[in-house]
Amino acid sequence: MSRPQLSQSIEILRYSPSGGRKKTTDVVSTEEPLEIRIRGKSIAISMRTPGHDRELAVGFAISEGLIERPDQLIKVAHCRRDEAKHPENIINLFLDANTACDLEKLSRHVYASSSCGICGKASLEAIRENWPSIQSDFSVRSQQLITYPDRLHHVQSEFRQTGGIHAAALFTQEGSLICVREDVGRHNAVDKVIGWSFLEGNFPLTGHLLLVSSRASFEIMQKALAARVPFVAAVSAPSSLAIQFAEENQQTLVGFLRETGFNIYSHQQRVLD
Amino acid sequence: MSRPQLSQSIEILRYSPSGGRKKTTDVVSTEEPLEIRIRGKSIAISMRTPGHDRELAVGFAISEGLIERPDQLIKVAHCRRDEAKHPENIINLFLDANTACDLEKLSRHVYASSSCGICGKASLEAIRENWPSIQSDFSVRSQQLITYPDRLHHVQSEFRQTGGIHAAALFTQEGSLICVREDVGRHNAVDKVIGWSFLEGNFPLTGHLLLVSSRASFEIMQKALAARVPFVAAVSAPSSLAIQFAEENQQTLVGFLRETGFNIYSHQQRVLD
Repeated sequence: MSRPQLSQSIEILRYSPSGGRKKTTDVVSTEEPLEIRIRGKSIAISMRTPGHDRELAVGFAISEGLIERPDQLIKVAHCRRDEAKHPENIINLFLDANTACDLEKLSRHVYASSSCGICGKASLEAIRENWPSIQSDFSVRSQQLITYPDRLHHVQSEFRQTGGIHAAALFTQEGSLICVREDVGRHNAVDKVIGWSFLEGNFPLTGHLLLVSSRASFEIMQKALAARVPFVAAVSAPSSLAIQFAEENQQTLVGFLRETGFNIYSHQQRVLD
Repeated sequence: MSRPQLSQSIEILRYSPSGGRKKTTDVVSTEEPLEIRIRGKSIAISMRTPGHDRELAVGFAISEGLIERPDQLIKVAHCRRDEAKHPENIINLFLDANTACDLEKLSRHVYASSSCGICGKASLEAIRENWPSIQSDFSVRSQQLITYPDRLHHVQSEFRQTGGIHAAALFTQEGSLICVREDVGRHNAVDKVIGWSFLEGNFPLTGHLLLVSSRASFEIMQKALAARVPFVAAVSAPSSLAIQFAEENQQTLVGFLRETGFNIYSHQQRVLD
């Protein structure tokens, strides 16, 4: 199996107030789904950075209380090439026959660790069936966009106090900040602003921009797609899968959004000079 | 129902090289489990910051493709006080009878968003049965501890390039950095170092310190407990539940670890002057 890539180099557009929009390259972290199987049954799917998958699967099994002694684990290995379309993203844990493994009990517990609302390559197909690409003429001027993190920061109550919370915010086409929610889980903050809009009768969000104080992962983009958000801006970095997903679904994705500029990863037409 | 607390003030010990160890207060983000139910069935449990729970549940349902129009949602409400021990942590989505909701399909997809390996108040009981508290005479000198983030940073390959990745590292009692793993998911990075140790025959980790480049959530502490790690140090903030969990399970928890000092949240006896 080929050596997994922890990160990858991609072409992007970099905007700065002084220099305008310029082509450059950026290095982004790779994000891919890993399915963990025991006795042929899928017990978890986790969005992870490829590499050290055997360690990840074993550590997961320990954390879930499935194994605690070396003799309980016979082998851990990826699927064979002839067994799956993406064998590098499926791993099998072979436990000792005497090791009890109550998968029924586990499946009630295991909501896998890392951030995956809907996972797996196959599920990417399912998403395409569930939600069409975004059609929206939403746009924002660069000079305005770079003020958004500061505006979010001003209304954030918790973050400055604890440093341990994520925020999500909705901006309208006219630049109004209409909703901010905070949560220890960045996906929860996004769900909260989407849920707020729905309950307010303001849905779908075709004319809005979603700003997140954190990174942009695959799941953030998926949630945005479900709510029909055409523009996602992140204060921190996007993952490889977030970019690919945004590209395919006609979502504009901006990262490293600061007063000093930002990176455009997809569908730049919604960013006006 | 009483107003939920987004954060809470707690007493901690603050260490700085110049001032030594001093009592002070810190504000930490509240982390609690929220169980989302549809038609009486639990569809997800998410570790979240209390508040705006109705929005969170609705946003989650939208993200999962369960609802997309206002007429599909009849009501969203917490459990009644007589229905559960912690009604504030359980919420019911009442969908229109005509709204298809294939829970069987959902349960294969929904590995709930935010970071919960094992969730729910009831599950906290289960953890107590699964893993006893940590007994370990592991200790580290303050002057040594403050050098650890920099040492981690030096061996991190990805982080400096992409800014979008988390790291976890293991240090021995003697101060050797023996394993570093990086991942887009911070829980994955922890699982990877635990799995590495297990596969190396170095398990349980009773004589080790786990350093994470991120925040310390409940789940990080639970994984550390499963691997028998007595000392967890985080570069960023811990959540309320992480602190409570560490206190109960005899784990030392340090947060905001920098060259300029750190906060001690539990079991300070393992930090030597």
